[in-house]
Amino acid sequence: MNLSTFLFGRRLSNREQEDKKIGWVEAVPAMGLDGLGSSSYGPEAALTVLIPLGAAGLFYAGPVIACIVLVLAILYFSYRQTLAAYPTSGGAYVVARENLGEYPSLLAAAALMIDYVLNVAVGVSAGVGALVSALPALHPYILPLCIGIVAIVTLANLRGTGEAGWLFALPTYLFICCFLGVIGYGVIRIVLEGEPAPVVAPPPLPPVSGEATVWLLMHAFASGCTAMTGVEAVSNGVGSFRKPVLRNAYVTLTIIVAVLGMLLAGIATVASVFGIGAMDQTETGYQSVLSQLIGAVSGYNAFYYVAMASLLSILCLSANTSFVGFPRLCRMVAGDEYLPKVFAQPGRRLVFTAGILFLCGFAALLLVSFGGITERLIPLFAVGAFLTFTISQAGMVVHWRRQSERHPGKLAMNAIGACSTGAALLVILVAKFAEGAWITLIAMPLTIVLLKAIKGYYVSLEAELRNPGPIVIEDIEPPTVLIVTEGWNRLSERAIKFALTISPDVVAVHVVRLGGPDSDENEKALHDQWKAEVEEPAAAQGLNPPRLILVPSPYRQLHEPLLRLIEKLDADAPERAVTVLIPETVKEKWWQRLLHMNRAGRLRSRLLRSGNPRLTVATVPWRLSGNGQNGERRKAG
Amino acid sequence: MNLSTFLFGRRLSNREQEDKKIGWVEAVPAMGLDGLGSSSYGPEAALTVLIPLGAAGLFYAGPVIACIVLVLAILYFSYRQTLAAYPTSGGAYVVARENLGEYPSLLAAAALMIDYVLNVAVGVSAGVGALVSALPALHPYILPLCIGIVAIVTLANLRGTGEAGWLFALPTYLFICCFLGVIGYGVIRIVLEGEPAPVVAPPPLPPVSGEATVWLLMHAFASGCTAMTGVEAVSNGVGSFRKPVLRNAYVTLTIIVAVLGMLLAGIATVASVFGIGAMDQTETGYQSVLSQLIGAVSGYNAFYYVAMASLLSILCLSANTSFVGFPRLCRMVAGDEYLPKVFAQPGRRLVFTAGILFLCGFAALLLVSFGGITERLIPLFAVGAFLTFTISQAGMVVHWRRQSERHPGKLAMNAIGACSTGAALLVILVAKFAEGAWITLIAMPLTIVLLKAIKGYYVSLEAELRNPGPIVIEDIEPPTVLIVTEGWNRLSERAIKFALTISPDVVAVHVVRLGGPDSDENEKALHDQWKAEVEEPAAAQGLNPPRLILVPSPYRQLHEPLLRLIEKLDADAPERAVTVLIPETVKEKWWQRLLHMNRAGRLRSRLLRSGNPRLTVATVPWRLSGNGQNGERRKAG
Repeated sequence: MNLSTFLFGRRLSNREQEDKKIGWVEAVPAMGLDGLGSSSYGPEAALTVLIPLGAAGLFYAGPVIACIVLVLAILYFSYRQTLAAYPTSGGAYVVARENLGEYPSLLAAAALMIDYVLNVAVGVSAGVGALVSALPALHPYILPLCIGIVAIVTLANLRGTGEAGWLFALPTYLFICCFLGVIGYGVIRIVLEGEPAPVVAPPPLPPVSGEATVWLLMHAFASGCTAMTGVEAVSNGVGSFRKPVLRNAYVTLTIIVAVLGMLLAGIATVASVFGIGAMDQTETGYQSVLSQLIGAVSGYNAFYYVAMASLLSILCLSANTSFVGFPRLCRMVAGDEYLPKVFAQPGRRLVFTAGILFLCGFAALLLVSFGGITERLIPLFAVGAFLTFTISQAGMVVHWRRQSERHPGKLAMNAIGACSTGAALLVILVAKFAEGAWITLIAMPLTIVLLKAIKGYYVSLEAELRNPGPIVIEDIEPPTVLIVTEGWNRLSERAIKFALTISPDVVAVHVVRLGGPDSDENEKALHDQWKAEVEEPAAAQGLNPPRLILVPSPYRQLHEPLLRLIEKLDADAPERAVTVLIPETVKEKWWQRLLHMNRAGRLRSRLLRSGNPRLTVATVPWRLSGNGQNGERRKAG
Repeated sequence: MNLSTFLFGRRLSNREQEDKKIGWVEAVPAMGLDGLGSSSYGPEAALTVLIPLGAAGLFYAGPVIACIVLVLAILYFSYRQTLAAYPTSGGAYVVARENLGEYPSLLAAAALMIDYVLNVAVGVSAGVGALVSALPALHPYILPLCIGIVAIVTLANLRGTGEAGWLFALPTYLFICCFLGVIGYGVIRIVLEGEPAPVVAPPPLPPVSGEATVWLLMHAFASGCTAMTGVEAVSNGVGSFRKPVLRNAYVTLTIIVAVLGMLLAGIATVASVFGIGAMDQTETGYQSVLSQLIGAVSGYNAFYYVAMASLLSILCLSANTSFVGFPRLCRMVAGDEYLPKVFAQPGRRLVFTAGILFLCGFAALLLVSFGGITERLIPLFAVGAFLTFTISQAGMVVHWRRQSERHPGKLAMNAIGACSTGAALLVILVAKFAEGAWITLIAMPLTIVLLKAIKGYYVSLEAELRNPGPIVIEDIEPPTVLIVTEGWNRLSERAIKFALTISPDVVAVHVVRLGGPDSDENEKALHDQWKAEVEEPAAAQGLNPPRLILVPSPYRQLHEPLLRLIEKLDADAPERAVTVLIPETVKEKWWQRLLHMNRAGRLRSRLLRSGNPRLTVATVPWRLSGNGQNGERRKAG
């Protein structure tokens, strides 16, 4: 077992494609981590905006979160329809491409890509931030911890999440049980006790310092909307479901949205009854809303620590949703030639290696550049998600209008979805523009320009190469063969023997790279040896004897004198092609590369780049045996 | 003018070799910086060992430094003889190779190489250390300063020191003038005034805390011997002198040794008369011996700052001596095949680029690993130099004995040289063993083993490749040509046209990398197109029509199915060679590489490494024009 097999698992054959697909049990952790994890920061973000209202903030929190849950519910029904209409791949990119045209689809692709990359950086650093505030001893290692988590998630995804599913499944289901449990318990206490006393009283709410303006409530709504990021993951990842695809996708989407909705509604209810508000994160004694909530409902017991640990884990691992979605998105975009083709190439484990590595690299770059500080990245975040929602729903509206059969109910559902997410997007853009949403607004058109440029390159390449028409062969005169040689040795022998099988016109070229007093003498010796060992025996066997030409190279390069010689041959006989044979020792060990100059490789690349259209470069390999025997001689002996 | 021309200067032709050689004016800075710079730390090191003797230490300093100057004088006359006997290249490596055999020469090479690398790290970090103690504001930037100086010296040497000579000449001659001047002034004051009063009194000498044991004096001698490192540079660099070579070499060696000797003797005299001892470097208020000396003789005036600045500069630049010597040494060792051949390859500026870069990299590595702390490296330092001296002189003794004519005087001179430097080496080894000399003793045999292993590789390579004897051509049947194709396009068209010129047996291979429901249909379409566009037109023109084979690749690799096919062809017709033609688009821009998969390059390298001795791999280049036109078509049009 070599290192790659150990790290990535044995390589998979095309036939194993089907076995790698997943059902809803694996899909909820794989696609839901992002959506579920955002339940921890969404409500908190909304409550933070409401801090200036003091105790009255809790009064407004209910309606704000109710709006968010309403939009979520609309999204759910909209996306169900999308899944049914596009059961192989229902992401915003595909829906927009099929219904809205090129630019809307590229806008969706750009928004999704930026969103996915941001999600990795934000999710990991938020998780590590929470971990570090729980264990201050880890504070100096924020960045290494972030990078380590990205590396683990990358590795798990290079193996394929099917196999590493338990890594994500365990904390996800634990998180769902813990938080649905504690919130359910809180709601039961409210129902039974009316106004239950908190086990541990939350810190008192701050004094009133502002008014409940429309702007403030809009802002709270916009911040709370981050709770909805990640809901589109199921529609993007629908291609990875096992059969029955649609049922698996429905169940997955339902579980994720239902749990998220219950968490949001429950948090709003319990927080307002127990008087839990957001706290200023920069002050000492800070506690998150969820931490206060568990304390108030059930106290700081062992359960508290289990629940917080599950929360930390899913925050840290929420990056995984991007690792599932991003490579699949890039595959589709690359399939349409808007991204380099390498993104459409399945790797040894049938996952899209290039996309995974690109996401890992870009997220690591973001983490390193921002040193793990997430606050500046979060405002950029919701824009991409809500833009995606809106484009996708708008595409679905066009989809239903184009059907020959009328679907007024479905059309209305998606239209409501498009309008509500579009309105939310507007609110988010206005409320968060100065905080960082403008960065997303700049990055998106740049991404679109890049995607268009790549497409343009492939289109012109295709135009250049395609459709040559029926082949017309003018003449089949063999090429002039130039053999690059350092003298009469086994490499030259092998090259000449091969050259004589393809052409009677063989010329050996020796490039004299260092002039000097004894070079004349060397040249004569070389010529004499060539005559005795090559020309005369070849002539005796009735063949056109291969000549030896010595060319000087004042600047010690191999390719310059060769290209001059080729130009001369071209001028003398413009109808004949030229083939340069380069004998090359095959280096099987890494240290052999250090001991050889790789002249062959550099010469080949220089000759190819010269762009002479009548030139072909051939390599005659010589495998070093290390015991003075080559394969050819073994066969003979 | 492109970037390389700006950084390194225009490239030089072989004919310009002679112009790049240097006379003694340039040679004193180029080869003497190391030797002259060591005058600042040699006496200081000896005096530091004598600190426990208090004022009595100054009494012993005279004889200790006198011994050192005596060894230096013996070395001078010995090396004069070496230069005369080996006027093209008189380094310890060559002298030992010619006279003592393989292992002593490798020992000399290893000692010299280690010494050169250490000299760069020690010189630069000592210089920066002195600079930082003068300007404490620079203290946080020790490592960047070190690396920056190494980079500047590297760049200057990649251009060739002839051209950048002024960079080294100015501080060197300034240093010589300043310190010979101030010491001469001190000596004159002693002669005129008897017991002159210091302008600024040096700090009082410490109280006596030890006895003048033989061990202590030995130790002082061993430490002081570091003043002699770098004297061998002229003998190693004799190849870079302009004609008259010998006269230039003599003058250079004489100036370096005379200045060094005068500095050493002068420092000892002036220090003992003015009562200047070494100070503990770790205590506050530390001043180096040379700093105290200038203060005592002429006071802290403007001259003081000029002199100290020149001292700092030559310490920082003393690394340059290594950059002159190391690449030349490596060139010679590589010429004897004990090092990779790339070390013997002159670069665009006729300097030995590989040696310069290796030295730069290794020194930077040492500097980074030790963070710029030099104290641990210095004890390792003198061992290499004195081992070199001893081997070189011993080699000369054998040289004179082998001459038919007797040279008893010369033989005696070199014998005295060998014995005295050998004795000094023993003292150094014993006195400095525990302080770090043992590291050198471990590194040297390891280096020798490495050099021998490299030689062994080249010898077996040579044995495998050389002397094939007169060529015997069994048959000239053309090879089977396999064309790797993605379908019928201009790349395939060009490859087929070329293939038909070298063989009538042409097979196009299409590797089906992704199976799937519509692949059968695609395959049929491909076959139909091939028949219509290639097979039928070719047959109509009376040619053997190129077939198309589709081979599946379950693991999505190109090389595996191809190698299987080649094996099958080999088994069917073992006497026929196989040529694989790979059409490749030539990427001229860096971004084109990102947009292509480089399948051609990877396939070529995999096929070559397969080691099949009947296999040749040819690349048919297609230069992308970007406007749908290729060179071949332009010619036709």
